[in-house]
Amino acid sequence: MSLLIGIDVGTTHCKGGVYDYQGKECAFLKTDTQIRWDCAGGAVIDANTLWESVCFLVKGLTDKVNPKDIDAISVASMAEAGVPLDRHGQPLYPIICWFDKRSQPQSDWWVKNFGPRFVFEITGVVPSYKYTLTKLMWLKAEHPQIITKCCTWLCVADYICYLLGGKKVMNKSLACRTMAFDLTKDAYSREMLEVAGVPHQIMPPIVESGQVIGSVSALAARETGLLQGTPVVTGGHDHVCGALATGILTDEYALDSSGTAEAVIVALNSPRLDWEIGEKGLTVGHHVMKDMYYLMGGMSASGASVEWFKSFVEGKKKENRPGISYNTLMSEAANFDPFSTGLVFVPYLRGSGAPWPDPSRKGAILGLRDYHGQAHVTRAILEGVSFQLRAAVLAIQEVLGHQLDHLRVTGGGAKNKMWLQLKADITGKHFEVPQVEEASTLGAALLAGVGAGVYENGKQAAHSVYRVKETVFPDKEKHRIYVKAFEDVYVPLQKILGEVDRLITSSHLE
Amino acid sequence: MSLLIGIDVGTTHCKGGVYDYQGKECAFLKTDTQIRWDCAGGAVIDANTLWESVCFLVKGLTDKVNPKDIDAISVASMAEAGVPLDRHGQPLYPIICWFDKRSQPQSDWWVKNFGPRFVFEITGVVPSYKYTLTKLMWLKAEHPQIITKCCTWLCVADYICYLLGGKKVMNKSLACRTMAFDLTKDAYSREMLEVAGVPHQIMPPIVESGQVIGSVSALAARETGLLQGTPVVTGGHDHVCGALATGILTDEYALDSSGTAEAVIVALNSPRLDWEIGEKGLTVGHHVMKDMYYLMGGMSASGASVEWFKSFVEGKKKENRPGISYNTLMSEAANFDPFSTGLVFVPYLRGSGAPWPDPSRKGAILGLRDYHGQAHVTRAILEGVSFQLRAAVLAIQEVLGHQLDHLRVTGGGAKNKMWLQLKADITGKHFEVPQVEEASTLGAALLAGVGAGVYENGKQAAHSVYRVKETVFPDKEKHRIYVKAFEDVYVPLQKILGEVDRLITSSHLE
Repeated sequence: MSLLIGIDVGTTHCKGGVYDYQGKECAFLKTDTQIRWDCAGGAVIDANTLWESVCFLVKGLTDKVNPKDIDAISVASMAEAGVPLDRHGQPLYPIICWFDKRSQPQSDWWVKNFGPRFVFEITGVVPSYKYTLTKLMWLKAEHPQIITKCCTWLCVADYICYLLGGKKVMNKSLACRTMAFDLTKDAYSREMLEVAGVPHQIMPPIVESGQVIGSVSALAARETGLLQGTPVVTGGHDHVCGALATGILTDEYALDSSGTAEAVIVALNSPRLDWEIGEKGLTVGHHVMKDMYYLMGGMSASGASVEWFKSFVEGKKKENRPGISYNTLMSEAANFDPFSTGLVFVPYLRGSGAPWPDPSRKGAILGLRDYHGQAHVTRAILEGVSFQLRAAVLAIQEVLGHQLDHLRVTGGGAKNKMWLQLKADITGKHFEVPQVEEASTLGAALLAGVGAGVYENGKQAAHSVYRVKETVFPDKEKHRIYVKAFEDVYVPLQKILGEVDRLITSSHLE
Repeated sequence: MSLLIGIDVGTTHCKGGVYDYQGKECAFLKTDTQIRWDCAGGAVIDANTLWESVCFLVKGLTDKVNPKDIDAISVASMAEAGVPLDRHGQPLYPIICWFDKRSQPQSDWWVKNFGPRFVFEITGVVPSYKYTLTKLMWLKAEHPQIITKCCTWLCVADYICYLLGGKKVMNKSLACRTMAFDLTKDAYSREMLEVAGVPHQIMPPIVESGQVIGSVSALAARETGLLQGTPVVTGGHDHVCGALATGILTDEYALDSSGTAEAVIVALNSPRLDWEIGEKGLTVGHHVMKDMYYLMGGMSASGASVEWFKSFVEGKKKENRPGISYNTLMSEAANFDPFSTGLVFVPYLRGSGAPWPDPSRKGAILGLRDYHGQAHVTRAILEGVSFQLRAAVLAIQEVLGHQLDHLRVTGGGAKNKMWLQLKADITGKHFEVPQVEEASTLGAALLAGVGAGVYENGKQAAHSVYRVKETVFPDKEKHRIYVKAFEDVYVPLQKILGEVDRLITSSHLE
């Protein structure tokens, strides 16, 4: 009994790690999250397939360590996605991905009838197609029989915990991404649920992260290789689990959780629901640490912009053209002076986030000349995404009323040295890279440890495992050039391009 | 004695054709124009290498037909490019390509000190880095010894005619692209040359197109396989030679000369120098028909936008990825409803032309979402280029005061049926595709025929050869959608994007 297991069900991959109490990785595996795209741009995950992926993953881990040594298991996951279950606990509909825009009309309805401020001051988030509540409203409108049959709605991490042998509960950090949780009352918002016409009884009891909610069942034990009876502990929102594992427990420094999407997160001691926060596209919610909150600013297409461009230039596979390696793309983009390509990339491939939130905003490549090639665009994409990070960090600083001096960076974006240096040069911040790359998985394992009593609390857990691998410092001269480019070009462009996007949107249905 | 030979020295290819009096092609060859790019984006052609290419080409043609049957030879060429010769007729500097921007400062100087209107009302063109005069000013500033040693400046077509055995002359259609020709006085503008500080004596005598200016020399005969003594006839500006071959001799219909660059041309009976024409980015000059003029609107990156995108997605060759075929790119782009990609491409990879002329304008891809792939962008490029064509046609109609009902289309753009249909749908015009694809080459041959007395004049020459292969008609419903998109999106975008480009330009040196 000296190991903890954490699962992270992400948008692109499911990951699982086994760690000792000091956070040393004893085993790690990942597998693709199998997203099904429909022709209208929708994206869903089959709940049963997802469970099979998790079982496959845990089975792989329990083959590598002695299952007897595992104290407990917990799960982190993508937020704002979940599954409706019937009275037998069977899924009634696939998991609709957070970035699937089918419930945009429901979000528009909230904006039109109540306004973003009303919703933010209750829930800490502004209306969006992303959140559970608009997705439930869409289900009710399009598939009313599903809501009729639905006994319980579970967010992804909670669904996996339930299948492992836990109870049907909702952990607070994911509850805060439903748009149905009242942060002030620390309970579901009856008002939000009623206005939405969503039956209150389908929302399961709310529990803190890091609580034991059952133990691995005989069935789950067979499928995962875990010992029957291993404690199952409530996990949480992946970015926030990452914040726990990197010791983001104050507002002195921030996590830069840099994957397909990117989020900047600081911890707060109390929920702040001033409208200036919501207006900037920032969100507020429960931390996975008891009695703590977070302030988060994000963008939907950070790594996704690089991934998009890689697929874009690769094109369809029918001409048997081999793929392009990330390394080639990145190394070609390395040899430019700051802001020297003549190009500006606006990274709103999935709408814009903090501090200029607008789901209808679009991506753009500006400044094109006939001599521009892939290397120029790759460089412009990395610069554009980093400008957007700077904008989010500035917005968070403004809300906090103090500077952030450094950020701790995790996820895929932490692995590319050139991009990290660019982030440092553009934001002017120090970027600390932790020894553990997969912070959300480790964060889930820490919550398992809190539940199992290994750690006294989240704080002690974080202090037990957080170690710095390296720190990347900004180049002062490059920073000066980038700040000027940000102020003279990137920020003024926003307003103008809002106009451009409105023109394009007005003539297209998405 | 029943054949005519025409040469067309283009930006991408040198072409040569042998035709009978009815315009039937008896032999045709083409070879690459060998452009040398320097690292700063400049582009030059070595004059001796160019002559070798032409000799190789003509040699190939004279191998296929009996040189005794050739009545005369003439040459069309890219405009706004030329070569300074010493007193022995040797090149002192390579040919600077028309799209090479090194003389932008000299162009700016004209705009600042005299304004575009002053220049237009004399020359029919507004100041640009493209024209001979700014390039001569650049040579004078950067390489004064070349101007000191220079005895004669020859435009490309005239240079080839000179080497064939002609005299050092300048044909009127190319003289009109020097920015040093006074259209009202029908002679060089002493004022323009003096202000520019370019010695008047380096400009050779001006002659009409279609005049015998010598005969093939013994040396040129050896190198080309032509018979010594074959008449050498003045040719002209490639687009305008194309206008001759397609019978563009009135302002009733227009030529759409659609290659790397694209130009819309109608014929005029007198030069019109009202500022409303220059302001729209249209130019006026001598036709290759005696006593005729033309009105022209163009864009620098039409086919060049497609070529750019093809190279862009192909990327560098180092990963041994095979190229992408035009057919693949084009066929993928075929299956979209009008203006349905959600993307707008602005085709200013080499600055903007008529009716919103501005060399500092840039290209853009707008409206990007994560589901956009190569097919969407290819489609958006073809639509964007066609919107720009529509804008140029509307500007010409406004100047003429009447509608153009149809266009005759030549060049690479005439070969792609889908693109032609798109042009028809977007402009609402009928597009007539002539039987002879390479109109500039045929136009040069017709001028050779005029010089040799085969035809009474250009008009008779044109009527002897022009035949329609097919006509493409607009789809009314698609036209309606595109007109709306043009008016609601493409035109309003121009003003906004001007602002965007100014922001980007202000922070970059090109």
